[in-house]
Amino acid sequence: MRTIDWNDSKNNIVMIDQTLLPGEYKVIECNTIDSLCEAIKTLRVRGAPALGAAGGFGVALSAFRSNASTLDSLLGDVESASNTIIATRPTAVNLSWGVNRTLKAIEDANNVKEVRSFALDEAKTIANEDVEKNMQLGEHGAALLEDGDTVMTHCNAGRLACVDWGTALGVIRSARAQGKDIKVISCETRPLNQGSRITTWELMEDKIPVTLITDSMSGHVMRKGMVDSVIVGADRITQDAVFNKIGTYTHSIIAKEHNVPFYVAAPVSTFDFERFEDEIEIELRNPEELKFFGKHQIAPLGVNVYNPAFDATPMEYVTAIITENGVFNPPFLLDEVKLRR
Amino acid sequence: MRTIDWNDSKNNIVMIDQTLLPGEYKVIECNTIDSLCEAIKTLRVRGAPALGAAGGFGVALSAFRSNASTLDSLLGDVESASNTIIATRPTAVNLSWGVNRTLKAIEDANNVKEVRSFALDEAKTIANEDVEKNMQLGEHGAALLEDGDTVMTHCNAGRLACVDWGTALGVIRSARAQGKDIKVISCETRPLNQGSRITTWELMEDKIPVTLITDSMSGHVMRKGMVDSVIVGADRITQDAVFNKIGTYTHSIIAKEHNVPFYVAAPVSTFDFERFEDEIEIELRNPEELKFFGKHQIAPLGVNVYNPAFDATPMEYVTAIITENGVFNPPFLLDEVKLRR
Repeated sequence: MRTIDWNDSKNNIVMIDQTLLPGEYKVIECNTIDSLCEAIKTLRVRGAPALGAAGGFGVALSAFRSNASTLDSLLGDVESASNTIIATRPTAVNLSWGVNRTLKAIEDANNVKEVRSFALDEAKTIANEDVEKNMQLGEHGAALLEDGDTVMTHCNAGRLACVDWGTALGVIRSARAQGKDIKVISCETRPLNQGSRITTWELMEDKIPVTLITDSMSGHVMRKGMVDSVIVGADRITQDAVFNKIGTYTHSIIAKEHNVPFYVAAPVSTFDFERFEDEIEIELRNPEELKFFGKHQIAPLGVNVYNPAFDATPMEYVTAIITENGVFNPPFLLDEVKLRR
Repeated sequence: MRTIDWNDSKNNIVMIDQTLLPGEYKVIECNTIDSLCEAIKTLRVRGAPALGAAGGFGVALSAFRSNASTLDSLLGDVESASNTIIATRPTAVNLSWGVNRTLKAIEDANNVKEVRSFALDEAKTIANEDVEKNMQLGEHGAALLEDGDTVMTHCNAGRLACVDWGTALGVIRSARAQGKDIKVISCETRPLNQGSRITTWELMEDKIPVTLITDSMSGHVMRKGMVDSVIVGADRITQDAVFNKIGTYTHSIIAKEHNVPFYVAAPVSTFDFERFEDEIEIELRNPEELKFFGKHQIAPLGVNVYNPAFDATPMEYVTAIITENGVFNPPFLLDEVKLRR
């Protein structure tokens, strides 16, 4: 199933609970805005594109759950629920984008029934467009991979960060769909281990061969000739740098040193070409992430910790950026990306 | 106290139980060869130099615990115990070296009393020599550091791997003893987290400022100008490469890319110049190390794992090797290292 979807028989939201992976695979149902908000807050659903769909489906859910009998009172309920949803992760741009796009779609509704159907149609369109874009991106990227290649990746730019297919892992899925035998090396991605918990899990589900390594092994495996290319996702792409999970920059240097191509797979919506690297503040996360693993203490409680969520990889280390509009080799202008079809 | 030492009042071995760090600091006593062997097997004491001392003290302990009243029967007991000690970690070169050096020292003993005193003297000499060498190494290395420097390190080449002072961390201690304000960035060192568990702990004990990062952050912190030099230890140094904890090679590339000096601190006994990198087999460790943290599962149970214990850093990435005989810039001949005083 998709990471997040609408269940037509029950008119509710279904999603894979990512907090239980890899120990348990469980599909949960969100019947209320409260349960959806809880799921977003606790990262049962995560990843920018998946959150866009969550926002859209959330607006639809609020329309279906409201007991309002008039158009005005229904729109009031939906607006209130929308604010609640957006407030769960105020800095997640895609979440509010999904909510607002769906709200816009119900502006022309003339009655309660139309609000519900317009909202649901728009939410489904958001989800379908995400899958479609990822598959286009995957097709473009797959052309860069050869039969027998091993691709190293970091963090999870897979289907579980999206509605389906994935970006970095979508390229691998598309290449395999073309009949190419592609293997993956997944870096565990400290400190939250998205690589070991989620990337390995989703690849194993699809029977794509995957080997787990620690992040620091990237030098060793590249020197041994075990890696043909690196593909990672991106959280934001400025004119001069790619912002992605901490560790990405380190891998990009290692790749360059070993003449291994370093690809970034990201939809055009990730581009923020009005800004430069030094205008972007990198969020510092909770120091506890480096002191505990579950309840297992791994560092002195009083130790000073530096825990940036992201790093910036300058364009000079990026071989190409793979988008739904094609593959772009830096340096390039944003217009080229946006206008090409 | 030292990592491992002899208690003259009880004639037994005392050591810091490193398996309990950083949660608990506990000094344990080994009154029998059985308890010493258990401590070595379970890594309560670890690190090549510390194991050398453990071997020496183990021979002395066996001499003190034996009830033999004749020289011959005592020597029989000691030999039997020595074999038991060596068998706990058969590939730990320093352990058997420490045992055999102490056995050699009792060859000239004429009676039971002399066996005990000769063995204990030799074991104490082994321990003292280790500390002395580390302090000489530290002095040589300290000259490379400037007041205000921040040094990044990987794994634990500290006093807890030795009898005292340490190699990589010994250089930092010596620089601070010279009045230089040196700060440390400690990489957590996956998968066994010696950096977060042990290096941070021993530096905090000595009130040396230390910041913990994940291994993959090395690129980010160097790009931010937060690192003035990298100092790591070594398990083995061949003519062409430095073998050390997995991740060392990655850090060496990152350091070179940012023009940060990359130093290896290791005693002359670490040099194995008769061999080249490709003659050394790198031990693969248990895949479970990447699947669990304590009891906390962090990867699918069936995932394929690649878990080499070490990597090899070619000499071209090494700025200098710091030894008790001085600082050597590659390329150099082993004779220069051995003969310089």
